[in-house]
Amino acid sequence: MSAGTTSSRKLAELSGPAVAAGFTADTIVVQPTGAIEHHGPHLPLLTDFLLADHIGGAAVEQAAAEGLDVWQLPTLAFTKSDEHSWAPGTVWLDADTMFDTVVQIGRAVALTGAGTLVFANGHGGNVALLQVALREIRKQTGLKTFLMPTLARVPGPDGEDADERGLGIHGGAAETSMILHLRPDLVDMRLAERWVPDHLADFEKIAFNGGPVSFGWLSNDFGPAGVVGDASRASRSYGAALWEHSLAEAVASLHEIARFDPAGPR
Amino acid sequence: MSAGTTSSRKLAELSGPAVAAGFTADTIVVQPTGAIEHHGPHLPLLTDFLLADHIGGAAVEQAAAEGLDVWQLPTLAFTKSDEHSWAPGTVWLDADTMFDTVVQIGRAVALTGAGTLVFANGHGGNVALLQVALREIRKQTGLKTFLMPTLARVPGPDGEDADERGLGIHGGAAETSMILHLRPDLVDMRLAERWVPDHLADFEKIAFNGGPVSFGWLSNDFGPAGVVGDASRASRSYGAALWEHSLAEAVASLHEIARFDPAGPR
Amino acid sequence: MSAGTTSSRKLAELSGPAVAAGFTADTIVVQPTGAIEHHGPHLPLLTDFLLADHIGGAAVEQAAAEGLDVWQLPTLAFTKSDEHSWAPGTVWLDADTMFDTVVQIGRAVALTGAGTLVFANGHGGNVALLQVALREIRKQTGLKTFLMPTLARVPGPDGEDADERGLGIHGGAAETSMILHLRPDLVDMRLAERWVPDHLADFEKIAFNGGPVSFGWLSNDFGPAGVVGDASRASRSYGAALWEHSLAEAVASLHEIARFDPAGPR
Amino acid sequence: MSAGTTSSRKLAELSGPAVAAGFTADTIVVQPTGAIEHHGPHLPLLTDFLLADHIGGAAVEQAAAEGLDVWQLPTLAFTKSDEHSWAPGTVWLDADTMFDTVVQIGRAVALTGAGTLVFANGHGGNVALLQVALREIRKQTGLKTFLMPTLARVPGPDGEDADERGLGIHGGAAETSMILHLRPDLVDMRLAERWVPDHLADFEKIAFNGGPVSFGWLSNDFGPAGVVGDASRASRSYGAALWEHSLAEAVASLHEIARFDPAGPR
Amino acid sequence: MSAGTTSSRKLAELSGPAVAAGFTADTIVVQPTGAIEHHGPHLPLLTDFLLADHIGGAAVEQAAAEGLDVWQLPTLAFTKSDEHSWAPGTVWLDADTMFDTVVQIGRAVALTGAGTLVFANGHGGNVALLQVALREIRKQTGLKTFLMPTLARVPGPDGEDADERGLGIHGGAAETSMILHLRPDLVDMRLAERWVPDHLADFEKIAFNGGPVSFGWLSNDFGPAGVVGDASRASRSYGAALWEHSLAEAVASLHEIARFDPAGPR
Amino acid sequence: MSAGTTSSRKLAELSGPAVAAGFTADTIVVQPTGAIEHHGPHLPLLTDFLLADHIGGAAVEQAAAEGLDVWQLPTLAFTKSDEHSWAPGTVWLDADTMFDTVVQIGRAVALTGAGTLVFANGHGGNVALLQVALREIRKQTGLKTFLMPTLARVPGPDGEDADERGLGIHGGAAETSMILHLRPDLVDMRLAERWVPDHLADFEKIAFNGGPVSFGWLSNDFGPAGVVGDASRASRSYGAALWEHSLAEAVASLHEIARFDPAGPR
Repeated sequence: MSAGTTSSRKLAELSGPAVAAGFTADTIVVQPTGAIEHHGPHLPLLTDFLLADHIGGAAVEQAAAEGLDVWQLPTLAFTKSDEHSWAPGTVWLDADTMFDTVVQIGRAVALTGAGTLVFANGHGGNVALLQVALREIRKQTGLKTFLMPTLARVPGPDGEDADERGLGIHGGAAETSMILHLRPDLVDMRLAERWVPDHLADFEKIAFNGGPVSFGWLSNDFGPAGVVGDASRASRSYGAALWEHSLAEAVASLHEIARFDPAGPR
Repeated sequence: MSAGTTSSRKLAELSGPAVAAGFTADTIVVQPTGAIEHHGPHLPLLTDFLLADHIGGAAVEQAAAEGLDVWQLPTLAFTKSDEHSWAPGTVWLDADTMFDTVVQIGRAVALTGAGTLVFANGHGGNVALLQVALREIRKQTGLKTFLMPTLARVPGPDGEDADERGLGIHGGAAETSMILHLRPDLVDMRLAERWVPDHLADFEKIAFNGGPVSFGWLSNDFGPAGVVGDASRASRSYGAALWEHSLAEAVASLHEIARFDPAGPR
Repeated sequence: MSAGTTSSRKLAELSGPAVAAGFTADTIVVQPTGAIEHHGPHLPLLTDFLLADHIGGAAVEQAAAEGLDVWQLPTLAFTKSDEHSWAPGTVWLDADTMFDTVVQIGRAVALTGAGTLVFANGHGGNVALLQVALREIRKQTGLKTFLMPTLARVPGPDGEDADERGLGIHGGAAETSMILHLRPDLVDMRLAERWVPDHLADFEKIAFNGGPVSFGWLSNDFGPAGVVGDASRASRSYGAALWEHSLAEAVASLHEIARFDPAGPR
Repeated sequence: MSAGTTSSRKLAELSGPAVAAGFTADTIVVQPTGAIEHHGPHLPLLTDFLLADHIGGAAVEQAAAEGLDVWQLPTLAFTKSDEHSWAPGTVWLDADTMFDTVVQIGRAVALTGAGTLVFANGHGGNVALLQVALREIRKQTGLKTFLMPTLARVPGPDGEDADERGLGIHGGAAETSMILHLRPDLVDMRLAERWVPDHLADFEKIAFNGGPVSFGWLSNDFGPAGVVGDASRASRSYGAALWEHSLAEAVASLHEIARFDPAGPR
Repeated sequence: MSAGTTSSRKLAELSGPAVAAGFTADTIVVQPTGAIEHHGPHLPLLTDFLLADHIGGAAVEQAAAEGLDVWQLPTLAFTKSDEHSWAPGTVWLDADTMFDTVVQIGRAVALTGAGTLVFANGHGGNVALLQVALREIRKQTGLKTFLMPTLARVPGPDGEDADERGLGIHGGAAETSMILHLRPDLVDMRLAERWVPDHLADFEKIAFNGGPVSFGWLSNDFGPAGVVGDASRASRSYGAALWEHSLAEAVASLHEIARFDPAGPR
Repeated sequence: MSAGTTSSRKLAELSGPAVAAGFTADTIVVQPTGAIEHHGPHLPLLTDFLLADHIGGAAVEQAAAEGLDVWQLPTLAFTKSDEHSWAPGTVWLDADTMFDTVVQIGRAVALTGAGTLVFANGHGGNVALLQVALREIRKQTGLKTFLMPTLARVPGPDGEDADERGLGIHGGAAETSMILHLRPDLVDMRLAERWVPDHLADFEKIAFNGGPVSFGWLSNDFGPAGVVGDASRASRSYGAALWEHSLAEAVASLHEIARFDPAGPR
């Protein structure tokens, strides 16, 4: 289906006429969304980009191999990272610029003839904004729109996550392990520490995720490291387990998305 | 502390100089956020406004009586209700207008000398946008910012919620019961039906709340009624139970908020 | 016509389907616009909100009782109060946010099937912006659009206004008297003074209202009190007279509006 | 004071360093605001531009000759003419573009060292928007800001205005007479008619100007001619009288502006 | 074709109905774009305005005399001059305001029935932004859109330009000579110096124009004078030669524009 | 200098603290800008992305090896491609979104401590907008800003470009040859044709590049293929020659940039 002979599922490797001829209402377009932002002294700025790009890409390839008509757009590098804007190296978009960007991606996807747009997101700071965009894009274009994470949590083979008390959300055991798995050359474990704001675990209502009360935070609210989690417990084996689980979850999500119809079976 | 002799906790009943003289970093300002939007044939447009206004207001009064320095702004009526914009009577703001509105409220609260701003939200369609705003306001002003719901779910005394399969998110048993409790004159139970999109319960990843995959929806995606839930199971007794529980949760949340410091105990 | 049994004229107490079924080109929707802003040490921040909400609401109820098909939206609390933004407690919207808000209200009203939108305004700082919006809404939606004040001046029974030299525009005798009439618990007359910038009365061209030359002002341009008028001359009796007159003017205006057609009699 | 030897009061004929060296807090900068918009079949599109440009310019020259330190910017041609956007030839700016334009003019004027900015306005459709801008510019820059009209009404020597019933606001006797006075080559009196929406005179509250109730209108709301007034009664003699009166009023206004201080005499 | 008896080609001297009746797809509308900005101590702020206004106007008149259906809008005075915003007297628009302004001019021109819009530009700082706008206007309206300069370079009769090394882009020999030709009363040659940043001529890739590498500059990057060029070599004779050549080039460009069709001969 | 052991010059492979510690005023950050847009039936959508990403990246690596302190950000995929928005598969940003994106990149680069930002651009449709942004970023941040192309033209070894008459600007011999060189699997030469709008070569003033008159065009203005150039003459050998030349030019440009100072030698 591509202009040449590629067999990948990268949408942009197709020619324009190939997209026009091949896409249908059953086509699913996946937009990975990463980030370039501070992740502590031990991890590269492109940590979340790697999560979105690798998991998003692998999930698309596997789901396509399993029969879905699914294609991947180039991963967004610069997104909503204002919670780390105090840290040099973070490249962040303002909320409205990020919002306009993804809505305009939706506009373009709708013109391909595809029926579904999925954001495969590697950066927690994008979640709320992308949820707002899901509705906006659906309203403006009629596309079915979804947001799925690229990192799914799993207990590590050696219990690496055990001591984070549910607070390992940025640069901690899980993310560090995944980068150890994907790009060990970019991790410096000598600088990895335990940066867990334990006192937050004592709150019942207020939580990063899952509690009823949300709060606005910047990553240096918890200390100068700008990390929330225990990086010292990271390992390649935990990273491998996370990769397996995250990929499986992403593929399963794409299958659900492919058969999802809000109006019910027809 | 007011200009006159009021003893309420309504911020706007104070004079400007009273605010300037009395507010400190310990002061908490609560901004209830409602909605004016279609809630089916049996409920008034101001359903979510009532939730935010009544629960938000009662929680502020009770928390103040228990010693917190907490004040309430007038409830926002028009918010982000674009999922119901197809239904006459809905008055909705565009995402950017709503965002700018709440950020500008934050700017004004910061100038009072208060240290904390809490959105007490009665409309699910506002959650993601307000979460984005929490960070923006914190970043721009330094305020501690929070979002808490005004409706907390509780099993009904007669199990009213049992049959909604977790899908009672708009105009269903819970909201209908609460309005029966608060303003029974505004509910017409003869028009209340079961509008539950049962097929959605079969999905494991995709969910309104709590699943890993979010989706963009408009309220008429599920049928022409624009309701998601089983209104026919509503009752005043369930409403009373919800009220008690929601108020208690909101008050408890305010107490947690009052002692919350991201940097930990000092 | 409501979802339940209410007989009020509050639009948002109706259900969505009731609006859709009942509104016609003859329907008039009234949007009161207040403000939460500094009004001096003697008056509450919600002074203008009270004017818009009470007069606007009473006028709608009376006009409806006299046969008009007229309905009231919830009063806007936060509007264009940047002239008082120096004073803690003022909650103001930027000009463009306020403009977008009211234009989006117009968009929603047009979708109800109503033919007319009236802003009943209690805050002078909104007048020019709302005049701009009247045209914008008419152009975008075809609605007939109007702006009417909620406070109509009248000579007081004891001549309270006599000494203000036409400069009693903010927190002076008239507004203080109205709040004494409506909510005496919120007024502290011990703090009420004469804050009249007498020198302004000497200008022939430049005036707050009515002169050919307008000027841009902030309320602390005239002194630190942020009041323009003689609050010390306020009285409940003058407030009662203002209330009677203002209500009568507002009702008469609604009747004129109901029969107004720019193209002339048909 | 100019770069060369000009003795005019056109600011832009000066060099940058001449402005920097010469302007003080006593300097008044006048920005005429015209319009390019439909004025009926008998008048040129640039009618309001001519009013602003000629009266504004003549007033500046005369006031300068009488001792004021006053300078004129080039007249804005394209402004807020959306009420005539249905008529080919009208060139209009959206409200926000016009607002941003004049606020940015204010920003530039503030940097010259001048203390005062005056809009000399020839187009009624700009009034409300400029009033909003007066405050915005004052707040952002500290400039004293004013808006004055360039056309002042006067009874005509032959009573030309008598039959317009106060409704001669666009293309009627006054404006047509002024253009007959200024540029008779641009007027075609053979096409001048009486286009007075007499029925509007019967309303007590609703009025173009001066009544308590404003309304949103487009110029073709009153008929296909897009004129509101009696052009057939125009004359050069009335134009000459209007010119004299308007110029005198504008000069007198500049003198008032020069001595105006909101804080009172110091 | 005008409302009155004018024979000029100034669009705004026509009446609205004359535009509606007379304009066709062959009609070309020319929008001159000037600037009010610092040009050194020897030149007036309106230098670029004069270039656009005089050359643009003369070219339109001559092209019309030679048979083209071409009309001129009033010259834009305030444009994108942020590179000189440090210098008092410069009046500049932000990029987005300038962009919106010209796109809205395009919208209005499209409604006249004309088929072509040409920007005749006298200020280099507008070029890139207008190029962006050409596409935007074409896309939104279908107009054919063009940008042409009003100053065309020519070797001077006495080699005035010889010593500027290609760096005479702002206030140098060419612009100074043109203003000496057009408005000698506004030039003070006693203050004219050689302000040539010679070191820039040594770069092969980086250049103001014509090199492959562009750079972002402010006019005071090169020194406090804010001029780039050798004003001391200016002369009226060189100005006259530039005028002849520039006018001829502009007229020839209009003829090319009149017969240009991207789709080729039909 | 990286978090781990990478020796690449990819900025985002560094940690935040590594950026903070290592970047100085001599550091140059390169932002490649590509596009995902229709390039005819024979080329992939990511053609311009490949040009920016490969040439930009190779130039950075080589310049760093030659001693410059230069780093590369992830290539922007979605940019200003509205001239191809008619063609499915194109993903384009609106002008203001693209502008805001690159200005916000500039803001982030300024916070790293680097002194210079270079856009290495592979898509002609971005040039004008990026030129506007160069100044904006310099003005807002003080960064030295540059724009350089990633494709430099060179006569082909077999004269492939000879027959395009200077019109090979999109999908023609040069771009097709480069993709044949870089990713031959993505090119389908069976679909490559000569799509040269020969008639455009007859114009003297109006030109895509280099002529005095610019015009606004959409890629389907010249025919349904949306290509401007002769793709049929492409070859891998010409692609190899273009690669060598383009890389050499880009590296040479970076060296010039590194020693460029608008104020001259110090």
